[in-house]
Amino acid sequence: MSGTYAVWGWGGPEDEPSAADLASLAPFVAETTGIPVQAPFRPRPLPELPPPRADLPSSLAPLCSTDPADRARHGIGRSYRDLVRAIRGELTHAPDLVLRPRDEQDVVDVLDWAGSAGVPLVPYGGGTSVVGGVEPVGLERAVSLDLQRLSGVVEVDPISRAVRLRAGTLGPAVEEALKPHGLTLRFYPQSFERSTVGGWVATRAAGHFSTRQTHIDDLVESVRAVTPTGVWESRRLPASGAGPSPDRMLLGSEGTLGVVTETWLRAQPRPVHRWSATVAAADFTAGADAVRLLLQSGLTPATCRLVDAGESALTGTLTTGEAALVLGFESLAAPLDQETASALALCQDAGLRVVEAGPRGTSGEAWRSTFVRAPYLREQLILLGVLVETFETAVTWDLLPRLVVQVTAAVTDALVAVCGGGRVTCRLTHVYPDGAAPYFTVFAPGRRGVEVAQWDEVKVAAGEAILASGGTITHHHAVGRDHRPWYDRQRPDPFARALGAVKRELDPTGVLNPGVLISAG
Amino acid sequence: MSGTYAVWGWGGPEDEPSAADLASLAPFVAETTGIPVQAPFRPRPLPELPPPRADLPSSLAPLCSTDPADRARHGIGRSYRDLVRAIRGELTHAPDLVLRPRDEQDVVDVLDWAGSAGVPLVPYGGGTSVVGGVEPVGLERAVSLDLQRLSGVVEVDPISRAVRLRAGTLGPAVEEALKPHGLTLRFYPQSFERSTVGGWVATRAAGHFSTRQTHIDDLVESVRAVTPTGVWESRRLPASGAGPSPDRMLLGSEGTLGVVTETWLRAQPRPVHRWSATVAAADFTAGADAVRLLLQSGLTPATCRLVDAGESALTGTLTTGEAALVLGFESLAAPLDQETASALALCQDAGLRVVEAGPRGTSGEAWRSTFVRAPYLREQLILLGVLVETFETAVTWDLLPRLVVQVTAAVTDALVAVCGGGRVTCRLTHVYPDGAAPYFTVFAPGRRGVEVAQWDEVKVAAGEAILASGGTITHHHAVGRDHRPWYDRQRPDPFARALGAVKRELDPTGVLNPGVLISAG
Repeated sequence: MSGTYAVWGWGGPEDEPSAADLASLAPFVAETTGIPVQAPFRPRPLPELPPPRADLPSSLAPLCSTDPADRARHGIGRSYRDLVRAIRGELTHAPDLVLRPRDEQDVVDVLDWAGSAGVPLVPYGGGTSVVGGVEPVGLERAVSLDLQRLSGVVEVDPISRAVRLRAGTLGPAVEEALKPHGLTLRFYPQSFERSTVGGWVATRAAGHFSTRQTHIDDLVESVRAVTPTGVWESRRLPASGAGPSPDRMLLGSEGTLGVVTETWLRAQPRPVHRWSATVAAADFTAGADAVRLLLQSGLTPATCRLVDAGESALTGTLTTGEAALVLGFESLAAPLDQETASALALCQDAGLRVVEAGPRGTSGEAWRSTFVRAPYLREQLILLGVLVETFETAVTWDLLPRLVVQVTAAVTDALVAVCGGGRVTCRLTHVYPDGAAPYFTVFAPGRRGVEVAQWDEVKVAAGEAILASGGTITHHHAVGRDHRPWYDRQRPDPFARALGAVKRELDPTGVLNPGVLISAG
Repeated sequence: MSGTYAVWGWGGPEDEPSAADLASLAPFVAETTGIPVQAPFRPRPLPELPPPRADLPSSLAPLCSTDPADRARHGIGRSYRDLVRAIRGELTHAPDLVLRPRDEQDVVDVLDWAGSAGVPLVPYGGGTSVVGGVEPVGLERAVSLDLQRLSGVVEVDPISRAVRLRAGTLGPAVEEALKPHGLTLRFYPQSFERSTVGGWVATRAAGHFSTRQTHIDDLVESVRAVTPTGVWESRRLPASGAGPSPDRMLLGSEGTLGVVTETWLRAQPRPVHRWSATVAAADFTAGADAVRLLLQSGLTPATCRLVDAGESALTGTLTTGEAALVLGFESLAAPLDQETASALALCQDAGLRVVEAGPRGTSGEAWRSTFVRAPYLREQLILLGVLVETFETAVTWDLLPRLVVQVTAAVTDALVAVCGGGRVTCRLTHVYPDGAAPYFTVFAPGRRGVEVAQWDEVKVAAGEAILASGGTITHHHAVGRDHRPWYDRQRPDPFARALGAVKRELDPTGVLNPGVLISAG
């Protein structure tokens, strides 16, 4: 269709949707989402980029690419607004250079040069940010520091079951390397195929499991990072009470304090016992009550995904007009009968209806495959003119029902005002004894040429409603540049100042990912 | 016996050991520990303290105590060296004043005054630090900020099962307040009776459960603290991915960045199903291997305490010369048969011998009662001239066996050199899939007058061996002043600088707990 799929597409060249793909998908989309499809977008060619404005010393030349597609690709993430702008050829913030360090010393050298030359550096893992995490906005010049060459497993500790990984390793490469050891990270964010270990750590990513060790924070034994003023390496430990956790200061720092180069992560064998069920709830609130009781009874289902009626119908999870609760239990050692019997009894006591339940083989993996394939479907929807985006939060149970109602209403109103209509669906992706993470999906008819402005307005409505309802501006998508207005209001003021002080100490010339998390100054 | 029990004793006046108590305990101690007892210490009277050197404004006078016993009590914690020095009347570092704020505004006012007058403030919860956390060493003057008047439950959220607590609330008061709601924190550090909620948060305390949510870090939903430059309050959330966690910066800050005034903690109902077992292992290493397999099979026993042969014999856990593994499972909803059967099968496969196993009623609570009573026994041993102290660490499984051997050897050698002999025992208190927390107990004959110097020398041997063996200088006792030499070497250098920058930002005049965690400057 065009030469720009490498810039905005989720997959490799073989994954680019053809005209025939889109034609066959169109009627299905119109029917299931109710959103009218449009004649497919014809991606525009890459605009001419300004000539690189950064003078690289010759010693760093071997790391450098100035290829326009490369620069363009490194200037965007994978949010709706990123894809639309790229498809429309509106790439205004491409970095001047893309540097690909081959080893940690290269990272040190690049930081040294950037610091002395005052050139902003944007650390780049897989480029799958959906929150403006890698886009060098408002900078006169910038360099993208692509870590993917720092890839691979350095060391496996089979006794402690932990693995030392280079930051640029992609999800599938991690699993491939662990397989011979009979281990897995069991960490599957939706970006699994395209995101990196270092990106997970920097953004506090979450996998798809609903409970227990589902945040990368929980898997981290230690982190090694290069800061502009020295190498940071924490001791590998199962736990420690020695002062505030060093790792927790880097987790979520989004490339503003240092560049993660390696990390030790906890691994585990694959589960032996698996069980799953689909349970129907009269509505989302009834389902949420049951989920709360499940979690508060001490059960820790690997999957506990409550999907509202609209999304259940859309995805075919349940087409009865009820909300669907998809439950999955997994275990290595003990059989699951008692936990699953307790879970089903509890659901039934709460008035839910068991649709199906039983041991499963690889059906969970089939779902996971659909889950990680979703971005491919999404880009096809976007090509068909559908405004499709997601956003997420977390909130305590006492505030959850009101948050879901208020956010849904605010976003629906905004869609009506901005797009003339649209749909908002909600599911709980992660659940805790004291609260849950609602995840919203929006479908609306995008208006050619103003889609980005449309979405920006809807996003403001979503952010305001989330904050007013007591939620966090992000549960696992990170802050980036897009969430700054709400993040700045959400965090404690002394903490914001503390973070600024850390930034000035570690990165005195302010070259690391300016604009993300922390304002300059 | 003397009027100083209020200064150094664990309990109230009724708990002070009498001469008869000590006389009846003495033969038992000599027999079980093999350490010769001595004629009981006769606690010396309080020394005359220098007159208070801090000029308090009259507005703060209602908060102030200059009572010598009060000042003396606030100048020490509850380590061996603290007790010995207090019993010997060697209290060289008492604070000049003890201030007891009645509400948060009082805390703000005290910080304002201290900041402008340049008077160091030592936040004080229950005063149970065993690492020199509350002793104002090397300061010309200092004020102890005792938070115990900020006590009580502010609010219970029965839906999300969380509770808003004032920082000065003691463990038993928390449980008393939660009981009518059918809830418990299920958080029992050994200092439970005498330590406070704010102290737990500030020091990253751990409860006695071996797995799952056993660190206070895991129970924290939000923290409110007064810093010298503003109030810090995080949003109450079940989870969040918005930047580095603000709470994790305060957790473990040990009173150096702000004074915790309130926190929301996660609560839960009491378990319904309980089961326990005692399993015998040929030796500690064989037991540790089994524990590792248990944890790595995904089991999460509430109790998983591996006690070496010496300590098993001493405590009567098992008197066969084997190491004892005490296992306990608890559950709210699902019966425990499958997990406990898996656990026992796994132990047997690993070559361990089941001594006893079965459902239990309140035997866990009986053990807990012994556990929280241990400090009362310890002070009696000290009065009988026994050098008795504990220290702890955490380490990954691959390094655990060597760490236990090396630390035991180093400390045994030091005891021989310094005390002419003594005993070191070890147990695992907390266990993780990737490692464990070994907890060491030392018994030796103290030599009258030089006990503190003796222990200091042994402690150096312990700290050096722990660091050299790959452990952390503390798993849950905190850093304080006593662990500084090793903490400073253990933490990443850029992190140390970051922490210093945070300190300067939040506490620009450096009045909060100087010397703990961070050096001035």
